[in-house]
Amino acid sequence: MAEDTATIGQRLILSDLQARNAAAIDDDRLEEWPGFFTEDCHYRITNHQDFSAGLRHGIIFADSRAMLEDRVAAIRGANIFEAQRYRHILNPPVISSAGNGWVAAVTGFAVIRTMQDGKSELFVSGEYRDRVMFDIAGGADQGVFAERVVVLDSQRIDTLLAIPL
Amino acid sequence: MAEDTATIGQRLILSDLQARNAAAIDDDRLEEWPGFFTEDCHYRITNHQDFSAGLRHGIIFADSRAMLEDRVAAIRGANIFEAQRYRHILNPPVISSAGNGWVAAVTGFAVIRTMQDGKSELFVSGEYRDRVMFDIAGGADQGVFAERVVVLDSQRIDTLLAIPL
Amino acid sequence: MAEDTATIGQRLILSDLQARNAAAIDDDRLEEWPGFFTEDCHYRITNHQDFSAGLRHGIIFADSRAMLEDRVAAIRGANIFEAQRYRHILNPPVISSAGNGWVAAVTGFAVIRTMQDGKSELFVSGEYRDRVMFDIAGGADQGVFAERVVVLDSQRIDTLLAIPL
Repeated sequence: MAEDTATIGQRLILSDLQARNAAAIDDDRLEEWPGFFTEDCHYRITNHQDFSAGLRHGIIFADSRAMLEDRVAAIRGANIFEAQRYRHILNPPVISSAGNGWVAAVTGFAVIRTMQDGKSELFVSGEYRDRVMFDIAGGADQGVFAERVVVLDSQRIDTLLAIPL
Repeated sequence: MAEDTATIGQRLILSDLQARNAAAIDDDRLEEWPGFFTEDCHYRITNHQDFSAGLRHGIIFADSRAMLEDRVAAIRGANIFEAQRYRHILNPPVISSAGNGWVAAVTGFAVIRTMQDGKSELFVSGEYRDRVMFDIAGGADQGVFAERVVVLDSQRIDTLLAIPL
Repeated sequence: MAEDTATIGQRLILSDLQARNAAAIDDDRLEEWPGFFTEDCHYRITNHQDFSAGLRHGIIFADSRAMLEDRVAAIRGANIFEAQRYRHILNPPVISSAGNGWVAAVTGFAVIRTMQDGKSELFVSGEYRDRVMFDIAGGADQGVFAERVVVLDSQRIDTLLAIPL
């Protein structure tokens, strides 16, 4: 842990934020999802190949919390995704850098998808590249995503990808 | 972490309890499994659909540690399960509430099953809904399950489900 | 946690070491991999059946950091493994024993493999049986593997197994 200055408390807040975010998605509480991000957040889903090439586009791309809220509304409006459930599996985060009130971390993950007929399968794997702010001003012992880049291991993405990862 | 009062130490004890419990099952030390529970524990395995509907039945249902011990004896007596090995994969727990000497948490998990012929597959995924007591009186720095409800993502359960999850 | 004397800090250093090691492999920074081990380390990959029988051989076997470096050089020289990516998924470690400046732990894991055509699959599962030294003399808040035995759940191993686990 020499490369950073994250405290034990900050590590646990980070891991807790990631786990609560995953639980909200997996439990279909999508309306809570934008609340895990700052107002001017950056969120996108890309793949390893494009990310390594420095490309900034994404399968999903948002530059504000409002865009995340729009996305949730669109999913609810379309109403076609009830048939599937997600289950996020999360690694311990690896802190890449840290400063006063923030940490950057890379966190491996996988998602299992269960269809309505009961069939479960490995859906995607990849890593979260997060920048998390700690809400010190608010006095709350919580973090929030300022940036979350979801880098998938495979460039072959299911075209039905619609629920946030 | 604002919604609860669990300390860093309690979080680690919880996560450690879950990991040791999983390791005992995966290592076929089933006789140790009931010892992770209180004498008057509640344990059941159900699925998301039934759990959401408020149904209290389960594929496996136990209302005491003695019933868990009976289950282990039955598995050993039947002696038909040597052919498979489990591998639990655990998320960080999400604390839902906490009090004096206890926490309640929801924890995502998946289980990989390896058959005797060497074939491995994703077996089930779901979440543990745990209530854990901390053994303060005993002076031990350990937790024990007072309640563990295993909610599977899929309602299509393998009929051979016999080893505890 | 009564069976050991590992502190909260040591647990986090251990988990962090495991996560950074996995990230280096998954990100194809194989040259960093030997640096996670002591000079006179023991590393091997075996399976549950052979491990339980007390056999000391391995699919991969190394008795020093230099042998790990040789292995990386061989992989780079062969240059045939670019086609696949690994994604390690790690459990919380279970401490089995601890002493002055070291811990021994058993940690469940799974690896997902993504081929160049984009197909992802569960590759292997198993447990790490680690002995980790804490670098107290160096003043660094880091751990290093003195021993890592990778015990796979299945004895049917992919013959292409070449990247370290």
